[in-house]
Amino acid sequence: MTPQVSIIMGSVSDLPVMNKAAQFLDEMEIPFEMNALSAHRTPEEVERFARGAEGRGIRVIIAAAGMAAHLCGVIASMTTLPVVGVPIAASLDGIDALLAIVQMPPGIPVATVGINGAQNAAILAAQMLALSDEALARRLASYKEGLKKKIVKANKELASVQFKFKTN
Amino acid sequence: MTPQVSIIMGSVSDLPVMNKAAQFLDEMEIPFEMNALSAHRTPEEVERFARGAEGRGIRVIIAAAGMAAHLCGVIASMTTLPVVGVPIAASLDGIDALLAIVQMPPGIPVATVGINGAQNAAILAAQMLALSDEALARRLASYKEGLKKKIVKANKELASVQFKFKTN
Amino acid sequence: MTPQVSIIMGSVSDLPVMNKAAQFLDEMEIPFEMNALSAHRTPEEVERFARGAEGRGIRVIIAAAGMAAHLCGVIASMTTLPVVGVPIAASLDGIDALLAIVQMPPGIPVATVGINGAQNAAILAAQMLALSDEALARRLASYKEGLKKKIVKANKELASVQFKFKTN
Amino acid sequence: MTPQVSIIMGSVSDLPVMNKAAQFLDEMEIPFEMNALSAHRTPEEVERFARGAEGRGIRVIIAAAGMAAHLCGVIASMTTLPVVGVPIAASLDGIDALLAIVQMPPGIPVATVGINGAQNAAILAAQMLALSDEALARRLASYKEGLKKKIVKANKELASVQFKFKTN
Amino acid sequence: MTPQVSIIMGSVSDLPVMNKAAQFLDEMEIPFEMNALSAHRTPEEVERFARGAEGRGIRVIIAAAGMAAHLCGVIASMTTLPVVGVPIAASLDGIDALLAIVQMPPGIPVATVGINGAQNAAILAAQMLALSDEALARRLASYKEGLKKKIVKANKELASVQFKFKTN
Amino acid sequence: MTPQVSIIMGSVSDLPVMNKAAQFLDEMEIPFEMNALSAHRTPEEVERFARGAEGRGIRVIIAAAGMAAHLCGVIASMTTLPVVGVPIAASLDGIDALLAIVQMPPGIPVATVGINGAQNAAILAAQMLALSDEALARRLASYKEGLKKKIVKANKELASVQFKFKTN
Amino acid sequence: MTPQVSIIMGSVSDLPVMNKAAQFLDEMEIPFEMNALSAHRTPEEVERFARGAEGRGIRVIIAAAGMAAHLCGVIASMTTLPVVGVPIAASLDGIDALLAIVQMPPGIPVATVGINGAQNAAILAAQMLALSDEALARRLASYKEGLKKKIVKANKELASVQFKFKTN
Amino acid sequence: MTPQVSIIMGSVSDLPVMNKAAQFLDEMEIPFEMNALSAHRTPEEVERFARGAEGRGIRVIIAAAGMAAHLCGVIASMTTLPVVGVPIAASLDGIDALLAIVQMPPGIPVATVGINGAQNAAILAAQMLALSDEALARRLASYKEGLKKKIVKANKELASVQFKFKTN
Repeated sequence: MTPQVSIIMGSVSDLPVMNKAAQFLDEMEIPFEMNALSAHRTPEEVERFARGAEGRGIRVIIAAAGMAAHLCGVIASMTTLPVVGVPIAASLDGIDALLAIVQMPPGIPVATVGINGAQNAAILAAQMLALSDEALARRLASYKEGLKKKIVKANKELASVQFKFKTN
Repeated sequence: MTPQVSIIMGSVSDLPVMNKAAQFLDEMEIPFEMNALSAHRTPEEVERFARGAEGRGIRVIIAAAGMAAHLCGVIASMTTLPVVGVPIAASLDGIDALLAIVQMPPGIPVATVGINGAQNAAILAAQMLALSDEALARRLASYKEGLKKKIVKANKELASVQFKFKTN
Repeated sequence: MTPQVSIIMGSVSDLPVMNKAAQFLDEMEIPFEMNALSAHRTPEEVERFARGAEGRGIRVIIAAAGMAAHLCGVIASMTTLPVVGVPIAASLDGIDALLAIVQMPPGIPVATVGINGAQNAAILAAQMLALSDEALARRLASYKEGLKKKIVKANKELASVQFKFKTN
Repeated sequence: MTPQVSIIMGSVSDLPVMNKAAQFLDEMEIPFEMNALSAHRTPEEVERFARGAEGRGIRVIIAAAGMAAHLCGVIASMTTLPVVGVPIAASLDGIDALLAIVQMPPGIPVATVGINGAQNAAILAAQMLALSDEALARRLASYKEGLKKKIVKANKELASVQFKFKTN
Repeated sequence: MTPQVSIIMGSVSDLPVMNKAAQFLDEMEIPFEMNALSAHRTPEEVERFARGAEGRGIRVIIAAAGMAAHLCGVIASMTTLPVVGVPIAASLDGIDALLAIVQMPPGIPVATVGINGAQNAAILAAQMLALSDEALARRLASYKEGLKKKIVKANKELASVQFKFKTN
Repeated sequence: MTPQVSIIMGSVSDLPVMNKAAQFLDEMEIPFEMNALSAHRTPEEVERFARGAEGRGIRVIIAAAGMAAHLCGVIASMTTLPVVGVPIAASLDGIDALLAIVQMPPGIPVATVGINGAQNAAILAAQMLALSDEALARRLASYKEGLKKKIVKANKELASVQFKFKTN
Repeated sequence: MTPQVSIIMGSVSDLPVMNKAAQFLDEMEIPFEMNALSAHRTPEEVERFARGAEGRGIRVIIAAAGMAAHLCGVIASMTTLPVVGVPIAASLDGIDALLAIVQMPPGIPVATVGINGAQNAAILAAQMLALSDEALARRLASYKEGLKKKIVKANKELASVQFKFKTN
Repeated sequence: MTPQVSIIMGSVSDLPVMNKAAQFLDEMEIPFEMNALSAHRTPEEVERFARGAEGRGIRVIIAAAGMAAHLCGVIASMTTLPVVGVPIAASLDGIDALLAIVQMPPGIPVATVGINGAQNAAILAAQMLALSDEALARRLASYKEGLKKKIVKANKELASVQFKFKTN
């Protein structure tokens, strides 16, 4: 099974956040791999990974990083595969990571999601793959339909809240 | 009993905050309803709600949302009823929600209150309704008079604090 | 002609911004007045104004202020009429004024609009008045319908932009 | 020629920024369309557009918006196509738009680029399309190679700067 | 004993912070009083207090407030006594209160100290009174001399930290 | 004529801002001096100044600085005279200077005014001196009374603005 | 053993953070000393320290401070030794300390590291000393090589995470 | 002449800022080179530069970058030479660049100076070199002495400002 998505994180401490990306890819039946790489500690590994990804069949890269988060941009500079960036809230509530990921110079985009937005990163990767995979597109559409259930359940809970002047 | 105010929230997790809006409306004897709707998960429901609200007798809408809080603005774009927006502190201390609610473009205002300011949202709704409801106006005035009691009680507590050079 | 809306500003330098509120009220045929008051320079005048407004027939107050913008909250503390607050960008791009207006304590709401959002303040006031004025409600609905024209015009301009691979 | 990318902006005033997206798509020979839509002024048009895009052959949507920028998230909620969001610096240097676009709730991602990052949005769209278009992948790779020229030119300019202790 | 300093706070919840101001005044043997007043809930009491303070012998006012912190500025607008403002961290880490207190318009200054800086507010009040009270000036100078002791104690603790290459 | 207030600034570039402090002191007939000192470039001069100020008859020090604004705090650490700090907007709109001046540690307060708030710094200094100078207290009270004139003039200008539905 | 690096902190409460600087210097076998000094409480001690450091053989100074963090800049103004500044997160998540340390005026640099970045401060000091100490340079290079181990270990942990569609 | 300092910038547009670094090194008679490199456009060149710098005799690297400023950190990850980082104000007043440079993870420090602080970067580099170059140390000390002249000149200008109650 060749992985189509590669999830990269700078540290094992990002795993509790990034697990949600893995869960979503699993649910969508998208083969993926998961590795730790550091733009600052293992730059050669990052380069080898980024330059080799396309040849190995990887189609989308999800990269997570905190603080002065260079990992996403560095990978993006070494491949033309789309790179999805996840800012991790490791300091300053994640504002430093968000700016260090999203504010890329012209020429090298990173598709940035919200702070700690691992699941959304995986959905974005799935949306890209679904452009040429109809079965996946159907699974995605069905997932999206399912989002409404959470609201239906929420309304049931709200219905049970009691106030004298509440009419529903 | 036809509801006059509709409280909308994006998720049941907003209920502990929004409960204070319900309590105030109840105290002011204003019939209200409470529902969950999501600008992103159930956009059709949001539209149906927003377009139908005036016809059902709703006069003011209170909408609460966090993060990239679109719910308030989306509802406001589909009705001419006044929409009161409550930014929920779900990330970045609520600054993202505050900006996403208050910074509306010309033409579509949202009457924004402070972060997690559910009670103030309900008071604002009551003030709007009181423009054409004298009994409610009197209840509001009496509520406002009551705000002073908290200060009277505070002064009693401060009076009991003991310092050698404290003169009161 | 009794004014229904009172526009208050802290300084004549706010007039270029607040003019848009006046223009909208004029367009909606809502009688209004326009005065300068300062929470800090003329506190007695502010109090006289705020306590007397309801008795004079004023139904909504629009207050604009910059920097440590106290005017809106101070007026709101002295009346149960709805107060719409407009943060003026006089320093720090208006973030100081936005926070000083919107972050009111429980009990005293200010219906805050975006930074320099004078027109939206007037629309909000009109929406409140329209709750008990059907003719105004119709004018508002028709104004809202007109907002689409701007987009129609925008599309015409975009249609004229020429690119080789542009298909429309 | 069926458009593959749809560029949406909230106002013609965004055109000077978004022109760079159009130029890049043109250079990459990707058929595209360009329209104005407003989440707040023409919500029905937005819905019609978002729900119909996939059926018309659109594969990626680029949406630009400023202030409380809801357009990108609203479109994303109504399609499973990837949506690339461009925050426009219309107020507060664009921080409000950035947060209102990137901080989406779980389930509805927007692939966000930097403030006013129109060219990067187009590159991202091209990268997604290139996943199933080898000719485009080659054009992209060649574009990326060309980025280095700017640096070569910069070095020539720096070489001409004269200082006594400058050694190159 | 006539109080020379008046400590005002908006709520009893500010007492744990403001207690440090009381302790310092007590230590400096400066008679003071302590009251709760709210710019928004008891505006008449605030006015009565501010206009009467000088006549009662009060010489410096210390006012503490959080969020859209109007109390300090409102008091300052009604007296020519110096007003020291203490921003309370009740939301957004106190940045809202800091800006709402310090960014006063020309004509009405508030002497602002750091967020939750109650002790510094009291020291500032003492410094002002010491301008015409030599005994107090001596107590202040002696207090300041004592600040060094904390550093002496810190150095003792640091001296006991053991490292192989630590030389002291 | 012995100066009672000493205005210190880090650079002549601060003079256009600080001139307003000088003008106000002049208007209040308070003898003052004006000097440039830098916490970083002339630390010995700063120390000599701060330690000698009280002995020379100086009673209040006004210090202005921008960026990592240390001047105010450094002076405050070497005297028990009250030090009024003026944050200068030399970078980041002055937020860096504001935080570097106001966020002092316990023991060493700086009475901070708003960004570029030179006039308010002078008023604050005058308020402190007026505690033991009745003639000055009267001039201050009369100045404060005069603040209302600006509002009276503003109202005249607003009265001349013409709208069909404007009632005043 | 003459210390080459001097670690200065404003308070013993900074020790848990600054301990990591000591540990690194110890690991690199660099003799160091550790002292508490306060720019505001013991300015004379700071001056004596800063002016005497070079003569005593100190080659790099590491200074840590929080809030309106003047210590680093004040020391830097009194020596030409390189000063490394560590912003301590004592309030506002450390943003105040970061700006108060890094935004120095032209002429007096402080080599600033990240918020609470004590270890990085020590590495920076070691890098400076290694410019003229080959043995230290080798230890540093070996330390840097060791950074990769953390990533190797992380990958082992990630390898053990089980998902159905995870391929590694 | 072997360069001891290497100034790297991401773009020629940074030259007007970085020129001040060159001027200072020239004044201190420190041989330097000046090149353009981009972490994102020419990652291989950056790597070749960073890995080869020490061997070529470079002793300190000054790197300037704006927005999501990765250049400094990427270079720092590939050398044990000290790297001085200059955040360039290309967007958001430079706050994005400052955070992206200073907030480095443990192990890879960048010695960060203020926004656009090119001269300070050069002074810092000179201070590091002066640790093993006594002649340079003397030139630095003499430069520092000269900083006071600016203050002397400032005082002359302030002496010429005329006010009735100005005493100097």
